[in-house]
Amino acid sequence: MKEIKGGITAPLGFKAAGVHCGIKENRPDLALIYSEVPAVAAGAFTTNKVKAAPVILSQKKIRKGEAQAIVVNSGNANACTGKRGFEDAVKMCELTAKKLAIAPEKVLVASTGVIGEYLPMDKIEKGIELASKSLSSQGNTQASEAILTTDRMIKTIALETNIPGQGNKWVRIGAIAKGAGMIAPNLATMLCFITTDACITHDALKEALQNAVNKSFNQISVDGDMSTNDTVIILANGKAGNKKIKTWKKKPTLRVEDENFVKFCEALEYICTYLAKLIVKDGEGANRIFEVKVEGAPFPKDARRIARAVATSNLVKTAIAGASPNWGRIMAALGSAQTKIKPEKVEIFIEDILVVKNGEPAGASLVSLQNAMSKNEVKITIKLNQGTCETKFWGCSLTEKYVKINKRYI
Amino acid sequence: MKEIKGGITAPLGFKAAGVHCGIKENRPDLALIYSEVPAVAAGAFTTNKVKAAPVILSQKKIRKGEAQAIVVNSGNANACTGKRGFEDAVKMCELTAKKLAIAPEKVLVASTGVIGEYLPMDKIEKGIELASKSLSSQGNTQASEAILTTDRMIKTIALETNIPGQGNKWVRIGAIAKGAGMIAPNLATMLCFITTDACITHDALKEALQNAVNKSFNQISVDGDMSTNDTVIILANGKAGNKKIKTWKKKPTLRVEDENFVKFCEALEYICTYLAKLIVKDGEGANRIFEVKVEGAPFPKDARRIARAVATSNLVKTAIAGASPNWGRIMAALGSAQTKIKPEKVEIFIEDILVVKNGEPAGASLVSLQNAMSKNEVKITIKLNQGTCETKFWGCSLTEKYVKINKRYI
Repeated sequence: MKEIKGGITAPLGFKAAGVHCGIKENRPDLALIYSEVPAVAAGAFTTNKVKAAPVILSQKKIRKGEAQAIVVNSGNANACTGKRGFEDAVKMCELTAKKLAIAPEKVLVASTGVIGEYLPMDKIEKGIELASKSLSSQGNTQASEAILTTDRMIKTIALETNIPGQGNKWVRIGAIAKGAGMIAPNLATMLCFITTDACITHDALKEALQNAVNKSFNQISVDGDMSTNDTVIILANGKAGNKKIKTWKKKPTLRVEDENFVKFCEALEYICTYLAKLIVKDGEGANRIFEVKVEGAPFPKDARRIARAVATSNLVKTAIAGASPNWGRIMAALGSAQTKIKPEKVEIFIEDILVVKNGEPAGASLVSLQNAMSKNEVKITIKLNQGTCETKFWGCSLTEKYVKINKRYI
Repeated sequence: MKEIKGGITAPLGFKAAGVHCGIKENRPDLALIYSEVPAVAAGAFTTNKVKAAPVILSQKKIRKGEAQAIVVNSGNANACTGKRGFEDAVKMCELTAKKLAIAPEKVLVASTGVIGEYLPMDKIEKGIELASKSLSSQGNTQASEAILTTDRMIKTIALETNIPGQGNKWVRIGAIAKGAGMIAPNLATMLCFITTDACITHDALKEALQNAVNKSFNQISVDGDMSTNDTVIILANGKAGNKKIKTWKKKPTLRVEDENFVKFCEALEYICTYLAKLIVKDGEGANRIFEVKVEGAPFPKDARRIARAVATSNLVKTAIAGASPNWGRIMAALGSAQTKIKPEKVEIFIEDILVVKNGEPAGASLVSLQNAMSKNEVKITIKLNQGTCETKFWGCSLTEKYVKINKRYI
């Protein structure tokens, strides 16, 4: 597995475009992703009860397991827009389908931006026309720019990985992402679009995506708030010509995992984790990020709950901002998670320095701790010593700048 | 029911003291509350898995249902202090019992302050001696000062309420509280001590306290972080001579609520809600507080989850700080709560201005909304229109000052 250039247009048979159509001032605001042939499709969407129209629509369409294009606008979330908003999302797909001469069922849609405003459909129509003409196998940068809102940098990656079976083929996976942090006046969104030329079954693609999302995008937090628009979509068009990847090798009595599937999962997890960490790094106002690793938990859910509780605690996050080794806040946060863990067995490390042993202070030097916490990325390791389950979660610091950004109306 | 002076020393037969013993510099740091006769006792404690030694000890002792004194120190939480911490908490009770010539079983203990440091027992011993000599029926202000940490004001109240049965007696309830917000280096605590001269059964006292706590202290948030030391204790010494308050009137087939119990519950709820709102007002860095009222929920837990999700959302809290009418953040926050509500039925009011109708923008004027949100206390009303359950929750704004306070190590 090695990194390559080209993002979502690195896999064979994919084109992309990013254009400016006037939803935002002077910045690209409409992206189009297109596969030359129909692709197997899978997605993951926000669990918020308040779902934006494009989320409701794409979630419904993707159940069929096939798609060929994704149209995305930034600057307007098309959320809390009722019947008209839903019709606008449908219309975006229809306009795109017409320009690409494909069926509207094969077009997915995503939006990010202001909540509670209707889409300027005349601008969007022009944008779709322009984008369909601009589609190119060099369009990755433009597309990755056009999905941004308050992001300070584009987020893209591509990998090439070897699939051993049938002629030792290489397959490519590329992705672009945006987010996170919610912005003025009231937007919140994480978007990620992934393309691959791997030949893979729908079941295998769904499982690989869910696995990767669970270990990456579901394990990050900027401000703990959950978006109405979060969307991750993967399209697999099979152009690499590899032997079709399945979840399991057929064996009479035993379900053995297909090694090609394992390889594909590894690559996809790498891509999603890379982008998830970029999103945290770009968190509004954040001056540093931190990783919370929980080890020795009795059950996976205990590890996840504790990691999340620590990474989303405002007190831990402000301590990270100030490089303050306030381990008592870590103890209080891990204790607040709904688990049955015994605090007297807990060890905590900040970087490689032991700060808590058996739930009590380990007498670490304040100066060395402050130095360790002044890094751009701080590692907190919590050893529960009560089992074998572990997890990682990434968060960012809470700074005055975050408050300043989010106090504004616009 | 009417407010009276005197706080925890307003009820008959209670004395209090607050002294400086040197845990903190130049500020009172040890409080003592004493009933002339053994009192019926009930308590509510943090649900954090990481519990401070005094919480573990008091929670165990209070199960017997009787107590006569409470000793409290501020400046050191006696949390994450292991076996030695527990022995110190036991010792605090023993020293107090000796000075007051009562059984150690009848003394409860609470602490608030730094996590992970052992108590300076020599100072505490001197403090207990001094406090036991200073006990007075005018000691409320001193005691309410001695339990504070970063609080900017003392928090105390007393009520007198009429209990009709048997000679139309008046009973008194008084209380002091401290908190909330967690402070440098790593302290978090809400403490509340309540005294009453009402004559009441243990069962009735427990039920009345749990009811009041559920509607008050469990319905506030400063930063969403949960303390290792949260403690609410009530002592009822029966000195008012009223007919004993029970939960239920005995009837052959029907359990009818005792009207005296209802009256007592109302008074206790008033006291706890008053103090809970004072705690939020005193939230670290807060420039205003807000009330989230959820109406029309299918189940009580839906109302509670939604109210909590909105009141603890960092994005809603920063919007409150900036008086920004970002109702999209309220929609996103309420959707993130684990419920099955239908967003298309939701109405939202900021003060009395309708901002969301049927889950869509109601077209409220921005200027009038900004004016409404500039008050010291902002009311957000969420009408789900999906049932009859309702609740209230109070939160405070998230400001740059909160971040500044909590970035510091000391």
